[in-house]
Amino acid sequence: MEKKELLYEGKAKRVYCTTDKNTVWLEYKDSATAFNGEKKAQIAGKGRLNNEITSLLFSKLAESGIQSHFIRKISENEQLVQKVDIIPLEVIVRNVAAGSFSRRLGVEEGQKLKRTLIEFCLKDDELGDPLITDDHIDILGIATDSEVASLKERALEVNKALSALFEEIGVQLVDFKLEFGKDEAGNILLADEVSPDTCRLWDISTNEKLDKDVFRRDLGNLTKAYETILERLGGRTHV
Amino acid sequence: MEKKELLYEGKAKRVYCTTDKNTVWLEYKDSATAFNGEKKAQIAGKGRLNNEITSLLFSKLAESGIQSHFIRKISENEQLVQKVDIIPLEVIVRNVAAGSFSRRLGVEEGQKLKRTLIEFCLKDDELGDPLITDDHIDILGIATDSEVASLKERALEVNKALSALFEEIGVQLVDFKLEFGKDEAGNILLADEVSPDTCRLWDISTNEKLDKDVFRRDLGNLTKAYETILERLGGRTHV
Ligand SMILES: Nc1ncnc2c1ncn2[C@@H]1O[C@H](COP(=O)(O)OP(=O)(O)O)[C@@H](O)[C@H]1O
Ligand SMILES: Nc1ncnc2c1ncn2[C@@H]1O[C@H](COP(=O)(O)OP(=O)(O)O)[C@@H](O)[C@H]1O
Ligand SMILES: [Mg+2]
Ligand SMILES: [Mg+2]
Repeated sequence: MEKKELLYEGKAKRVYCTTDKNTVWLEYKDSATAFNGEKKAQIAGKGRLNNEITSLLFSKLAESGIQSHFIRKISENEQLVQKVDIIPLEVIVRNVAAGSFSRRLGVEEGQKLKRTLIEFCLKDDELGDPLITDDHIDILGIATDSEVASLKERALEVNKALSALFEEIGVQLVDFKLEFGKDEAGNILLADEVSPDTCRLWDISTNEKLDKDVFRRDLGNLTKAYETILERLGGRTHV
Repeated sequence: MEKKELLYEGKAKRVYCTTDKNTVWLEYKDSATAFNGEKKAQIAGKGRLNNEITSLLFSKLAESGIQSHFIRKISENEQLVQKVDIIPLEVIVRNVAAGSFSRRLGVEEGQKLKRTLIEFCLKDDELGDPLITDDHIDILGIATDSEVASLKERALEVNKALSALFEEIGVQLVDFKLEFGKDEAGNILLADEVSPDTCRLWDISTNEKLDKDVFRRDLGNLTKAYETILERLGGRTHV
């Protein structure tokens, strides 16, 4: 497999074509961004850590029967994945109130929700990824009702598997964001990444934040937090 | 029936107790506010016009079998209504893209939606009335799933009746906001007001705006626009 031209450069990753039309080459960057790109930094090691953690988590999810786009890790900060057409929705799963949920709705951060909440945001940087309802998704023609139902079901499955995984290593999975895409045959596949950039992860005993909020809120050393996660997951923290 | 102490003063109305515990006395004010109270003005005649138009529309809805809190108009700018506990939801009905829908989702104003959309916003001035989903309503304990279903059904009925009513007078009902409350027995009742303050009303032939957007967007004379609506509805424009 050879890396070909750059297909798309996002805030955290570069997507390259390969010699196989159904495979793309993801390069994890050291860029950190928050608040829809308003806050920015370069953090050495972040790309490697997120590549490592995402590869590990997608492999563990596959062991629990949850398929994703992940094929294999090919270097410190690169992986091969199945090419999909990303459905322009951020699928947000919340177990505990935090972040925009707390801010928008005036609910104290840390309050456990009576059941897992799924939210959809329109993936559109210019519009600031606005929250949308199932009816918006239908009326805007973003996905069909049955696709939305399937996204919710899959997101809950991922939550179940990931929550258990993190609980085993003394981490509470507060919330996270998933992206899904369609492969060539039109099948919906879990895509993008699952990392401390896209999850809120709190140490179960100390409540220490081990995720991107360390960067968003200037709480200390981001790579140290991400290394803690990787280490506890049993990954190689230093290459 | 006698007017007693002030129960609540809102941005557009004052609510007074009466000698009957199940009846409140609504006084429509001449205040105009927009953008969650950021823009403000006093507009002589606005209270009278909204009282007149709401009374007329609630009477016409009752004739189509849609009950509301409305009992009767008692003066130029006052009416008696059934007291309810307001459900803290703004029930927004949209036939055509406009306002916050267009702005948030990047859809051109004036585009007809493929079907009528119902949105819920949390009625909370401090939070800026954020959009919420059915799942938020359940998880926050604001209303039960069956109450939400009933609110949607009623909102669609109101839309059908009001759209027909406005079409007859050459006005397109673009969108509107409803509030519902529960009476002493726990029955859900349409409440608050239905006026050019809470509807977007466009002249069918000229697209002229005959609603609060005249104030929000400085498009001209607000009372003239509201008087046009009242006149076409067959109401008394000058007392
Ligand atoms: N399997 C895939 N096939 C094609 N594109 C993908 C795949 N997985 C993720 N992407 C997309 O790669 C892009 C780059 O990722 P990222 O830097 O995180 O972007 P963003 O700035 O949009 O968050 C995103 O648009 C993401 O949706
Ligand atoms: N039948 C009713 N019983 C009790 N309160 C009502 C009734 N109808 C409307 N209200 C409430 O009266 C208040 C005053 O109205 P308004 O000035 O429009 O307030 P706001 O500033 O919240 O929009 C609002 O809180 C509204 O929900
Ligand atoms: Mg991303
Ligand atoms: Mg009001």
